[in-house]
Amino acid sequence: MSTKPKVVIVGGGFGGLWAAKALANEAVDVTLIDRKNHHVFQPLLYQVATAVLSPGEIATPIRRILHYARNIEVILGEVTGFDAANKKVRLEDGAEISFDYLIVAAGARHAYFGHDEWEVSAPGLKTIEDAVEIRRRVLLAFELAEREAYLKGSHEPLNFVVVGGGPTGVELAGAIAGIARQALAKDFKAIDTKKARVVLFEGSDRVLGTFAKELSDSAKTQLEDLGVEVKLNSFVTDIAPGKVKVGEEWIECDVVLWATGVAASPIGKQLGAETDKAGRVLVEPDLSVPGHKNIFVIGDMASLKQENGEPVPGVSPAAMQMGAATASNILADTKAKNRKNFRYVDKGTMATIGRSKAIVDIQGFHFKGFIAWMMWLFLHVFFLIGFRNRIIVMLEWFWAYLTRERSARLITGDAEELRNALAFLEPAESEPIKETPSEKAKAKVSVK
Amino acid sequence: MSTKPKVVIVGGGFGGLWAAKALANEAVDVTLIDRKNHHVFQPLLYQVATAVLSPGEIATPIRRILHYARNIEVILGEVTGFDAANKKVRLEDGAEISFDYLIVAAGARHAYFGHDEWEVSAPGLKTIEDAVEIRRRVLLAFELAEREAYLKGSHEPLNFVVVGGGPTGVELAGAIAGIARQALAKDFKAIDTKKARVVLFEGSDRVLGTFAKELSDSAKTQLEDLGVEVKLNSFVTDIAPGKVKVGEEWIECDVVLWATGVAASPIGKQLGAETDKAGRVLVEPDLSVPGHKNIFVIGDMASLKQENGEPVPGVSPAAMQMGAATASNILADTKAKNRKNFRYVDKGTMATIGRSKAIVDIQGFHFKGFIAWMMWLFLHVFFLIGFRNRIIVMLEWFWAYLTRERSARLITGDAEELRNALAFLEPAESEPIKETPSEKAKAKVSVK
Repeated sequence: MSTKPKVVIVGGGFGGLWAAKALANEAVDVTLIDRKNHHVFQPLLYQVATAVLSPGEIATPIRRILHYARNIEVILGEVTGFDAANKKVRLEDGAEISFDYLIVAAGARHAYFGHDEWEVSAPGLKTIEDAVEIRRRVLLAFELAEREAYLKGSHEPLNFVVVGGGPTGVELAGAIAGIARQALAKDFKAIDTKKARVVLFEGSDRVLGTFAKELSDSAKTQLEDLGVEVKLNSFVTDIAPGKVKVGEEWIECDVVLWATGVAASPIGKQLGAETDKAGRVLVEPDLSVPGHKNIFVIGDMASLKQENGEPVPGVSPAAMQMGAATASNILADTKAKNRKNFRYVDKGTMATIGRSKAIVDIQGFHFKGFIAWMMWLFLHVFFLIGFRNRIIVMLEWFWAYLTRERSARLITGDAEELRNALAFLEPAESEPIKETPSEKAKAKVSVK
Repeated sequence: MSTKPKVVIVGGGFGGLWAAKALANEAVDVTLIDRKNHHVFQPLLYQVATAVLSPGEIATPIRRILHYARNIEVILGEVTGFDAANKKVRLEDGAEISFDYLIVAAGARHAYFGHDEWEVSAPGLKTIEDAVEIRRRVLLAFELAEREAYLKGSHEPLNFVVVGGGPTGVELAGAIAGIARQALAKDFKAIDTKKARVVLFEGSDRVLGTFAKELSDSAKTQLEDLGVEVKLNSFVTDIAPGKVKVGEEWIECDVVLWATGVAASPIGKQLGAETDKAGRVLVEPDLSVPGHKNIFVIGDMASLKQENGEPVPGVSPAAMQMGAATASNILADTKAKNRKNFRYVDKGTMATIGRSKAIVDIQGFHFKGFIAWMMWLFLHVFFLIGFRNRIIVMLEWFWAYLTRERSARLITGDAEELRNALAFLEPAESEPIKETPSEKAKAKVSVK
């Protein structure tokens, strides 16, 4: 019989994984449970969605990352409930796992402000599956326009809409503009991919609103340089297949991406603690759940005010720091030492916009454009997990930079999905773009 | 109005793509139609199925490959019928495309000898989607065994079954044995992945039966060195979820993979020509369809006897040669020259079995083991499409060789799919493997 305390971690994102790393080969037994077998490096997920990187380049099996830790077991499973009194978590098939300490780090998903029916038309970006679906829709839109132009001699305008001007929305809008203007332009012959519109709708009066005003303004300019139309103070009020409503106006579009609104994992509610509007658990200063010193909630699931009254932001460095701090506090318990309250250390924030375009804020020092972009690239390769992934991602970026190509331009899915896509994307009524066909293009159409 | 003849190519596999390349920038207008947006380098597909490579590393957008050709248009679509009299092909939505010349190169899929219901339990390997599904099943089987051992202290034996001892079956069996014995061993703590059985069933009396007897025998020995159980003269007579019937005996298994039986694309039948048992069109010596000098069928869809009476084999070099030969004949027509009959040039055959294991036959010169494997690696990198893919694949192989790891170990699919998998793979009744748990493992189980 082991007398070591048993720590159960729910979730292998930044919070759970950093907690596990800090507990590796310490005097505790650890079980990490995740619904997926892989940790996703979320900051680069938009590059999978926009065909720069392959899924395998930013996702690593959790048990591979932790295989050096003799005291950590990784289990594939979905936690569906807790029994705090008897110190057990319950899996989807009813199996139970006991714990002495519990760290809940199940993250967040995008929320649709009570309109879950919008998700079908406007997917968000949180998982590898989301990224592959977005990639499919974006690439398919170009393919269907090409086909239409080839068969009919003209095609409906290509419109991409991104809802939300936070980091994900800005990255997606910038990357799609890059695809349309650079990566695809040479490969399509019946359409001019450069004419595709990319529109970013943001409800507030600036993009990347958590940054200083000066950097927000720069980000907007950099986006516009890439060809993105940035519409501020624009609320999306309804979404239906092939169109979004902004204010009172319906706008036709081929692809809508949802990059606003976050809701913490619903399992937070099952802990019986108070939650905020976004479903985050209001935690104690040591990140424990009120009334349960042995249960911690961290990362995007936790709501905690810093000393300056500001909430700890829902960013990956905060989740990593929370994971490490919680591990320290559990180890402190086992050594009968005092716990420390969590304190978020802001080492700087950055957001990328596109090729040679980014903004960085380090302790009030502002960087924009190419230099900020290089800082962003360097830091993201540095933090990426796994030596092999770093090498491959650097190669992919170098290649993409040199050639302006995208290397992971796969549309996957079965034939039925393709037919559904054809039906779904069947263009609504609007003014077709008349291409000015070259002699060659004319020839093709006339042969038909 | 163009007076150039219009060539329509159906399918962007080796046959269709090589035909298109040979017609690039010649005095014809070409339209290539494929259901997918990407060409798949089929010889490396099993490496995606076994987590060595990512899909994006062996698949390239067809329009990217052909973008240098001013006279080639690539269209995403599914050809569902032909109107030979009026020289039109019909797409899935009823749209029609005219041609002067038609090259049908839609390939083949695996066939289940009239038991299509087996496909759910025993997927085959022809597309990227197939490969990702196989990867999911193989990796999931290990994850579920680990979970079972963790929760219950023991687990059902892990059995992988491959049906068919041709190249694909041998590659899959060898690669799965490699995963179990090398790549995963360190990452799983509650189970011993090395105890997983990999069984290859082959109906004839040897594997890789198209090779010389000596090489077949070597291949069997090399497979057994990797830990694969090779069962010759063994016919699979039935398949149901979680089990296969061999002769009269049902055998429990976690994953069954289907690597035998090929059927040409069903659209061949719509040409109105005679087909063989596998649905291949019996073509004229110039690969045209009897009675239609302007319609060609090539690659895995064509059935043609060589001068020695042997059929042209269904391998990628034959498809490439047929594509190039057909393009030549069409160009000969346009220049009022004579067509040439197709003649397959066998430059040698090779099959890989696993790490440092392969067989090669070049004009009767036989190579086995490491040297054959190096030849296989070199040739496959050389033929892989795209400079970037070559670099990345070489890097991946070098990394895998050094570390014995697999870098694309992702299980993707939504939570519902995971639950279905849990239900599907729910172990049947058989003797559980009793692990000899280490002190640590015991401790974990007792805490539970």
